Amino acid sequence: MTNLPPVLSPAYRLVIRLEIDNRPGMFAEVARTIGARGGSLGAIDLVEATPKKHVRDVTVDVPDEATGEQLTADLTNMNGVVVRSVSDRTFLMHLGGKVAVTGRVAVRNRDDLSLVYTPGVARVSLAIAADPERSWALTQRANAIAIISDGTAVLGLGNVGPLAALPVMEGKSLLFADLAGVSAFPIVIQPGTVEQTVEAVARISVGFGGINLEDIAAPACFEIERRLRERLDIPVFHDDQHGTAIAVLAGLRNAAAVCNMSINDLRVVVLGAGAAGIATARLLRTAGAKHVIVVDRNGTVTTKRADLNAEKRALAEELGSSEPVRPLADALRDANVLIGLSGPRLVSLEMVRTMARPRIVFAMANPDPEVDPVVVGSEVDVMATGRSDFPNQVNNVLTFPGVFRGLLDARASTVTTNMELAAAAALADCVPAALRSAEYILPSVFDAQVVPAIAKAVSGAARAEGVARRTDRDAAPGPAGRPIAG
Amino acid sequence: MTNLPPVLSPAYRLVIRLEIDNRPGMFAEVARTIGARGGSLGAIDLVEATPKKHVRDVTVDVPDEATGEQLTADLTNMNGVVVRSVSDRTFLMHLGGKVAVTGRVAVRNRDDLSLVYTPGVARVSLAIAADPERSWALTQRANAIAIISDGTAVLGLGNVGPLAALPVMEGKSLLFADLAGVSAFPIVIQPGTVEQTVEAVARISVGFGGINLEDIAAPACFEIERRLRERLDIPVFHDDQHGTAIAVLAGLRNAAAVCNMSINDLRVVVLGAGAAGIATARLLRTAGAKHVIVVDRNGTVTTKRADLNAEKRALAEELGSSEPVRPLADALRDANVLIGLSGPRLVSLEMVRTMARPRIVFAMANPDPEVDPVVVGSEVDVMATGRSDFPNQVNNVLTFPGVFRGLLDARASTVTTNMELAAAAALADCVPAALRSAEYILPSVFDAQVVPAIAKAVSGAARAEGVARRTDRDAAPGPAGRPIAG
Repeated sequence: MTNLPPVLSPAYRLVIRLEIDNRPGMFAEVARTIGARGGSLGAIDLVEATPKKHVRDVTVDVPDEATGEQLTADLTNMNGVVVRSVSDRTFLMHLGGKVAVTGRVAVRNRDDLSLVYTPGVARVSLAIAADPERSWALTQRANAIAIISDGTAVLGLGNVGPLAALPVMEGKSLLFADLAGVSAFPIVIQPGTVEQTVEAVARISVGFGGINLEDIAAPACFEIERRLRERLDIPVFHDDQHGTAIAVLAGLRNAAAVCNMSINDLRVVVLGAGAAGIATARLLRTAGAKHVIVVDRNGTVTTKRADLNAEKRALAEELGSSEPVRPLADALRDANVLIGLSGPRLVSLEMVRTMARPRIVFAMANPDPEVDPVVVGSEVDVMATGRSDFPNQVNNVLTFPGVFRGLLDARASTVTTNMELAAAAALADCVPAALRSAEYILPSVFDAQVVPAIAKAVSGAARAEGVARRTDRDAAPGPAGRPIAG
Repeated sequence: MTNLPPVLSPAYRLVIRLEIDNRPGMFAEVARTIGARGGSLGAIDLVEATPKKHVRDVTVDVPDEATGEQLTADLTNMNGVVVRSVSDRTFLMHLGGKVAVTGRVAVRNRDDLSLVYTPGVARVSLAIAADPERSWALTQRANAIAIISDGTAVLGLGNVGPLAALPVMEGKSLLFADLAGVSAFPIVIQPGTVEQTVEAVARISVGFGGINLEDIAAPACFEIERRLRERLDIPVFHDDQHGTAIAVLAGLRNAAAVCNMSINDLRVVVLGAGAAGIATARLLRTAGAKHVIVVDRNGTVTTKRADLNAEKRALAEELGSSEPVRPLADALRDANVLIGLSGPRLVSLEMVRTMARPRIVFAMANPDPEVDPVVVGSEVDVMATGRSDFPNQVNNVLTFPGVFRGLLDARASTVTTNMELAAAAALADCVPAALRSAEYILPSVFDAQVVPAIAKAVSGAARAEGVARRTDRDAAPGPAGRPIAG
């Protein structure tokens, strides 16, 4: 296998403040130093100028963090140059946090204050005490969710803890606000037993219309979600499981269509039996895929294995996998589809070549896929990854904003598999059949039709299943508001 | 005692949409009906006009909710008038909730997305995992608090439950944002044992810079606060206790000054031994008041009583109250100060007349004070209430925004009594000595100097006590941000 080319991601963009002697040729020397380290020079701002010195903010893209540090050292060692500070555009975007609680109404004077706080608020409290249903209209509840993580399985980083998970949860919160108008509070929690996590989340859930669990390690995530769903009357949705599963199903439906096949007839291998792999295998099966095999680091997940946790054992039973355990290479032979939700470079070109046609490969380990998309590109019919720098990015940003928008719009009391199927169909339909191709099986995350399409599908499914609590009367308050006795 | 005059609070302002026959004199009849019920006619908007009908939005102030309902019935019974809807300005202000989570940075394109979410956010997570202190700069934590209530003691309403408490917590959140720029998440929780509440709050506290406990019933509130303070390294502040105590101390300091006295020499009776009463008695004592007696519904709180809960018993010991129990009327005789934090109309004019000069009465039960301020006005030297329609409103809106602003500015690890004393002094000093008078002992909640003055006092006290974690380097990030290795 070859290595993937280094990607010059904007995530590694530095702004370096330099104090440079005011001598002819000095800046050219700085530029040469940056270029020699592989940096790419961007905007240059003059901050301060004296007869002897120029202070400049220089924007530089570098391939990775280590290069940035080497470049800083190079510049520090230059004669006539002082490095005042090096800041990093990624870090600047996160400075002070990415979200905040802000008011939706103005408090300009004592009159306003008496309405939003004491004494006026007491009447609102009493109205809710008399009829708790009114909390949907008179508080944030109908549009507020909690994004909850214990930091035990953050992105591909693993168990980095709740504080390190907070920037990710804030990022999701920001995307919820921007893409779907959902007010999503990021709440990171101390890791504990399943019981402790369930208890804490249930106890604080009262004022929310939904719970988005996030980056919680398997297998605890399954049990936590299951018990919270039993206990609460609002939707609980572990995005690592279902958000991913929905995006994969949508992508696979369109990939199959490109190959003039139906999902039902494809032989699917899911590599990875964590939260995403297990949920994806289940959803594909429910969607009609008849042949689904799951593989973890010890081989196929079958009832013959003695080393499975409860969730994997249940999965093996659901999938009817009772054959003797086989290694990945065996499982892939004659399969049509590889869904990689595992780790970097676990699949070789040779293995892909043993697959049957049509060959569809989703290699979603990030940032290094299970198999190099450049190398296998010519060997497969459809290729997708989790990366933004290849066609067909499978990303749960495509799903979670629309799913929660729909759940809240319907005031759903729970999430169901039918909603997930409806969301996947809506997402797949965002790619017009006429334009569908091997390199266009999923829409862009910035496609403005995605969120409303998924939201409509999810709220429609909620109503069809009888778990929507929003009535027409709630949905359309008159311009002068609700009846006093409402 | 006379009754207080009904107060035409803007909290009872209705907007009534009426369909009125287009006949001469019809609107005059509507106006007469409104006046006959004691309503006061405000703005009138024409919504729709046909040759036969006019649809109008009529704004009416009424003394109370019942009158509004009677007026609606009167209008419904009129010939030629149809009531289309009645909405209530208070309820309109709360519709959909009063706060929301919003983004602090823009996500305009894929480049931004890669910085705030994957893959860029992974670098921020790793930086925090390597050095958790960086979470103060790289997440919301340095400016975010949680406002937590279980709804067991909401305003003067009692145990109305967490959902009914939510509008109050949202109101606080709104005031935190507007007055102090603090990002305060309202989180209402299922009531439980002290242990359950402490456990839930501690578990979700990781991503916050402070915890504002609110409207939790005594005596549980004391134990919950104490245990959370032991367990957490961020400030935990039960506002019903300390916010009130700070405002009372500030007001009393200025009231004493108006009477040319010092707090130390005043004989103080605190009526009410709930969260606010106990904390206020303690803070007054710490501030130097030598004579403080607390009275609950069964009389003076003394060590002789067998019916006290643990907190009241501890208080009796702290105050050195070991005499036999006495009723309120006895305790008030020859006292200078009555601090009412109890219920309506518990104190008679006759009782006030037995007090010694100077006589200072803070009657803060809301909306009906312990004693009618109009009736006793001429009998006392300084009178204060919790109401906005009398001079000298004692309101914890004066304190909580500035206190938390100061705690966050200092990145304080805890709250101390010295901070509360400093906050009270700063609040009192917002009234210039030259302007101080019997009717001006506390500033307005809209006085823009209050929050910065209290914040500065609190963060200064935090530094003096060695519990501030913010260093100069944190406090002043350069324009180009933090060093890459920071």
